[in-house]
Amino acid sequence: MDSQQFREFGKAAIDLLADYMDNIRDKDVLPSVEPGYLMKMLPENAPEEPESWKDVLQDFNQAIMPGVTHWHSPRFHAFYPTGQSFESIVGNMLSDGLGVIGFSWISSPACTELEVVSMNWLGKLLGLPEEFLNCSDGPGGGVIQGSASEATQVGLLVAKDKTIRRLLEADPTLSEGDVAARLVAYTSDQCNSSVEKAGLLGNMKMRLLKADSNGRLRGETVKQAFDEDIAQGLIPCYMVANLGTTGICAFDPLYEIGPVCNEANVWLHVDAAYAGAAFICPEYRHLMKGVEYVDSFDFNPHKWLLVNFDCSAMWVKRGYELVNAFNVQRIYLTDTDTNVKVPDYRHWQMPLGRRFRALKLWTVMRLYGAEGLRKYIRNHISLALHFANLVRSDDRFLVEPEPSMGLVCFRLMDGDSTTKLLLDNLTAKKKLYMVAAT
Amino acid sequence: MDSQQFREFGKAAIDLLADYMDNIRDKDVLPSVEPGYLMKMLPENAPEEPESWKDVLQDFNQAIMPGVTHWHSPRFHAFYPTGQSFESIVGNMLSDGLGVIGFSWISSPACTELEVVSMNWLGKLLGLPEEFLNCSDGPGGGVIQGSASEATQVGLLVAKDKTIRRLLEADPTLSEGDVAARLVAYTSDQCNSSVEKAGLLGNMKMRLLKADSNGRLRGETVKQAFDEDIAQGLIPCYMVANLGTTGICAFDPLYEIGPVCNEANVWLHVDAAYAGAAFICPEYRHLMKGVEYVDSFDFNPHKWLLVNFDCSAMWVKRGYELVNAFNVQRIYLTDTDTNVKVPDYRHWQMPLGRRFRALKLWTVMRLYGAEGLRKYIRNHISLALHFANLVRSDDRFLVEPEPSMGLVCFRLMDGDSTTKLLLDNLTAKKKLYMVAAT
Repeated sequence: MDSQQFREFGKAAIDLLADYMDNIRDKDVLPSVEPGYLMKMLPENAPEEPESWKDVLQDFNQAIMPGVTHWHSPRFHAFYPTGQSFESIVGNMLSDGLGVIGFSWISSPACTELEVVSMNWLGKLLGLPEEFLNCSDGPGGGVIQGSASEATQVGLLVAKDKTIRRLLEADPTLSEGDVAARLVAYTSDQCNSSVEKAGLLGNMKMRLLKADSNGRLRGETVKQAFDEDIAQGLIPCYMVANLGTTGICAFDPLYEIGPVCNEANVWLHVDAAYAGAAFICPEYRHLMKGVEYVDSFDFNPHKWLLVNFDCSAMWVKRGYELVNAFNVQRIYLTDTDTNVKVPDYRHWQMPLGRRFRALKLWTVMRLYGAEGLRKYIRNHISLALHFANLVRSDDRFLVEPEPSMGLVCFRLMDGDSTTKLLLDNLTAKKKLYMVAAT
Repeated sequence: MDSQQFREFGKAAIDLLADYMDNIRDKDVLPSVEPGYLMKMLPENAPEEPESWKDVLQDFNQAIMPGVTHWHSPRFHAFYPTGQSFESIVGNMLSDGLGVIGFSWISSPACTELEVVSMNWLGKLLGLPEEFLNCSDGPGGGVIQGSASEATQVGLLVAKDKTIRRLLEADPTLSEGDVAARLVAYTSDQCNSSVEKAGLLGNMKMRLLKADSNGRLRGETVKQAFDEDIAQGLIPCYMVANLGTTGICAFDPLYEIGPVCNEANVWLHVDAAYAGAAFICPEYRHLMKGVEYVDSFDFNPHKWLLVNFDCSAMWVKRGYELVNAFNVQRIYLTDTDTNVKVPDYRHWQMPLGRRFRALKLWTVMRLYGAEGLRKYIRNHISLALHFANLVRSDDRFLVEPEPSMGLVCFRLMDGDSTTKLLLDNLTAKKKLYMVAAT
């Protein structure tokens, strides 16, 4: 395909997507296909000869589209929102067009530097303490990870590395393997499955501590768990607090958990995957009270801040601890000497390669502006309250707990089985998509 | 931004990228900026009010572009090639436009099924044994990971899980922690840094075994390492063979390493990140002789097969072993019952979320056709040979070892310091970008 054909193909695809969003409201949110529909429909082999882009777009409409669950339909209320916006689509297209890999400064200076700038902008929008920002005097800074799962795992691996170093320094007779086997991670029983998976992947026991009746993990519960484990010869290492739990969007009190973790030398990571976006509105920042105790903080602009997946924003207070944990230096990856504080982001993440993800984040922030983003969040929250009031006006329903952010949990007074029946009926009609939580 | 503005912004960006590629040949491959250039240039805060997309494109040209290292310039010969094509850019834009998250079949059926279809197409193009394909009778199949690093790590974690299960079943008195601490992974001292990092991340000792004088890790070296470790009470668990090493693009003989690994119950993973693409041409498949011994095989269409990062193609013989290692089931993630063999890909990878990456892979395969892709690979290899002959025609240079795939290693007869001086001079001129290997 030459550049002229690309102009035609690309512009036809832009129109296709604009039409899609213009008409998404009229589509069933859930597709009416059976498992295997597409595997049966498409050829068994790649074509030998090139096909035309018009055929590809036609198949996209006729074969792919009928099997799409429309996450951006106004009738999609399942799982969680995933970011998408016209602004972000174009921002990411610019990234794909450059096609650079930004694993070091020289591999594409703008890729690293725009990430620094964008993460500073975003951190300031959230009102994060200055020590998390690259523009502070200290060793803090932000980095874009692929997902909250990845950020949780990065936190765990760094915590593990740091704890092992600390204990071996204090007592050189210890063996690394022995220390590693005694490390324990903690989170609430309301955590997202990805947090549990991080323990699995990082080979660290992950204790799911009991949240209180409001779904919040309390400081005293954490303290007690640490004490129990220490008494058994185990070593508390890593704590994941949730700001906005998956089930009911509860907020763990950082001001309680934080001092307990700091006191016990336990790395405190915050998973604010969905709800973190709301902190761009000052009126919600009280929900992250105590964030100054935190070691790493992560939320997903790709969930509730209009940036396309993947863009998980992670800040740490001490970037060098990531470098300590992940640095594998080779001759072909030599750093550039520099007096400016430019992070070598490949040491801040698990993979070596990294895309120019800052472009879509930067594009979204510029084209919405801080006020536009706040308006977007506030509108979602007020729609949720509006919906909750509509549900409450019907005696057969109970809204419980109180709506939190954009999440409204409700059920039938009649009990769980009737609620499940309602959900099944609604899902079967494909007009509305919601999921169950317990 | 409404859909009309998106049509304008998107089409202007398409034109910008088409112009970029039309003129990339005339640009210096390396930028002339100092560290911190962009951080100094951009405002310290996100704008309060929305800006215009025209300003964003203008800043893209005036602030971002001067700091870009042009990976797709014909004068870029550093690191490795990274995939990019007009076809892939549009394919990925379609994915961003749908903005779906494909962690289960129902979360977007087409997302899962097109990945199955595309990975079958691609596996057949490579000539992989049928048991790696989802369309075979067995439990094999392909999955798109984010990077070769991630695939190596997935293989390691599955190998670890499988080995621990096997040993605990055989002897229930063993402790999991004790077994885990004795596991050992292996690769060649020519491996990519990401392989070493996988050991670091997965908390498994990674032995870098000595390659022979041709850069190939031999079966007898592997056998000897296993024997040494077993004699010391350690447990060989995971082996990463390299098809196309980073330094000189050497190919480990799978037909030697494979039987040794199978005999010792060691999971054999193949990292063919760059060179794997060449197997679409039958004349290079002799370099993967012995692939039938392999447990998992990974290569990056996002390196040398025109698909934009990220798209790392991984096949396994037994998908259920990934599910065993990674499954963390929650109520909100219930699977759909199905008689069709549709994988739940979230259990085949580390993160929960996943994009519709198959769209760009499918678009590239359709618009190039198998013959177009083979032509692309063959052209690169013949250009490398042409360049090697040009270098050889000058007595001051030595080409060594023999060119392999698109890689030509050469140096000055005068010795390493003169070679280094030449490289430094070339880099300073910014017209040509290469890197050193030892």
